[in-house]
Amino acid sequence: MLKLLVIGIGAGNPEHMTVQAIKALNRADIVLLPRKGSAKEDLAELRREICRRFLENGNTRIVEFDLPQRDGSETYLKSVDDWHGAIAATYRDLLAREVPGGGTAAFLVWGDPSLYDSTLRILDRLRTTHSMEFALEVIPGITSVQALAASHAMPLNTVGNPVLVTTGRKLKDAPPDAADTIVVMLDGDMSFRHVAQDAYDIFWGAYLGLEQEMIVAGDLAEKSGEIEAKRTAARDENGWIMDVYVLRRKGGKPSG
Amino acid sequence: MLKLLVIGIGAGNPEHMTVQAIKALNRADIVLLPRKGSAKEDLAELRREICRRFLENGNTRIVEFDLPQRDGSETYLKSVDDWHGAIAATYRDLLAREVPGGGTAAFLVWGDPSLYDSTLRILDRLRTTHSMEFALEVIPGITSVQALAASHAMPLNTVGNPVLVTTGRKLKDAPPDAADTIVVMLDGDMSFRHVAQDAYDIFWGAYLGLEQEMIVAGDLAEKSGEIEAKRTAARDENGWIMDVYVLRRKGGKPSG
Repeated sequence: MLKLLVIGIGAGNPEHMTVQAIKALNRADIVLLPRKGSAKEDLAELRREICRRFLENGNTRIVEFDLPQRDGSETYLKSVDDWHGAIAATYRDLLAREVPGGGTAAFLVWGDPSLYDSTLRILDRLRTTHSMEFALEVIPGITSVQALAASHAMPLNTVGNPVLVTTGRKLKDAPPDAADTIVVMLDGDMSFRHVAQDAYDIFWGAYLGLEQEMIVAGDLAEKSGEIEAKRTAARDENGWIMDVYVLRRKGGKPSG
Repeated sequence: MLKLLVIGIGAGNPEHMTVQAIKALNRADIVLLPRKGSAKEDLAELRREICRRFLENGNTRIVEFDLPQRDGSETYLKSVDDWHGAIAATYRDLLAREVPGGGTAAFLVWGDPSLYDSTLRILDRLRTTHSMEFALEVIPGITSVQALAASHAMPLNTVGNPVLVTTGRKLKDAPPDAADTIVVMLDGDMSFRHVAQDAYDIFWGAYLGLEQEMIVAGDLAEKSGEIEAKRTAARDENGWIMDVYVLRRKGGKPSG
């Protein structure tokens, strides 16, 4: 019998690992560690660091492999669809080769497996496209959103009010008015530049939980330029950047 | 110097504790443990269990205290405001009595301190209303939303789409159309009964992470009655219930 563990490993700080995640890691026969190309070598190294610190089961093997890259030449949804298909085929081959008689394989997911991560959808294709049978167990993990709020020591929601979690792409299309708090993820393009600058405060963070962590908070009109400069410089220096932010509409102040 | 640690302890399973949270707990001179009245004695006991399992610093003292109760006779926002004021005064007195010369005090928060928890707002009153000075450090924790998604082995968002996190109160007022995925928290009144029953699937869970955990998923029109019956029976049996759910609009299917 094949068992797949999808383990949330937190937002960058190895100490985001939960006791549940550490135990799950040590139940695995193999741990699959994707290499993502040189730009994200730091992230692959962090996954290795987590295994070094928390993996005590001498029988667990670490299997590194190359993830297929997304083809940027198609429309967004089509290219994501093709890409997920390619990754599913890679997983199928890896599992057939590494645990041919069944066993437990662990996937280490940044943040939480439920939020803007494709692992669960891709594993679903192993069932639907490749007719594989397996048990599936998901272990939650700390997201970059939570690390951001912790670093700013801020509540996400105002009292009794909703929070919208969205993407840079969606924010640029139309700033939502469903909530006075908007969390923006997957934004490679600083889409906060496209909302009304005088209507929001921003709480921004990059490399959360890592030693390069930087945060900026304040009036969006005042801080927008500072964030843009810091983000560009940091990306040039590190070769990559991962950031996340909260926009809080002014006038929707917490009342309690 | 006074230092306050606000530590997210997860959604009920003690193994949701992160390495960061365990280390923070062991840095504290005192840990403040609220008693919440008999209905929530199980939850107070879980906080004690977390201290028994993870607290190894023999110098850390556990200080149990009675939290003021919210007065239900006022309007919602007014009663929350008064209640927070009363809790802030309680904290001020406790800190003055227990760490009069300064030191480190830890607050253990269910879920994550940033999401529908008032601790950070209440501590802010120590500064604004009571002119206290302190350093503040927040440690993120696994929320019931993440525990719910993990138990259902489901992604929260559909590909590239937003997620709205809201309350039962807001859902009843007006079912939001800002997102095809709606996470509903703080719902004591099964407000899912007030949305169009044929328009959503529901993914529901109660007592997440505890031994009484129960989950139900499926077509809302089909499952609404089942959830209502299970929820009522469980609340009668246990004397309390905490639940959370996701509504996923039909037709907004994941495309990848």
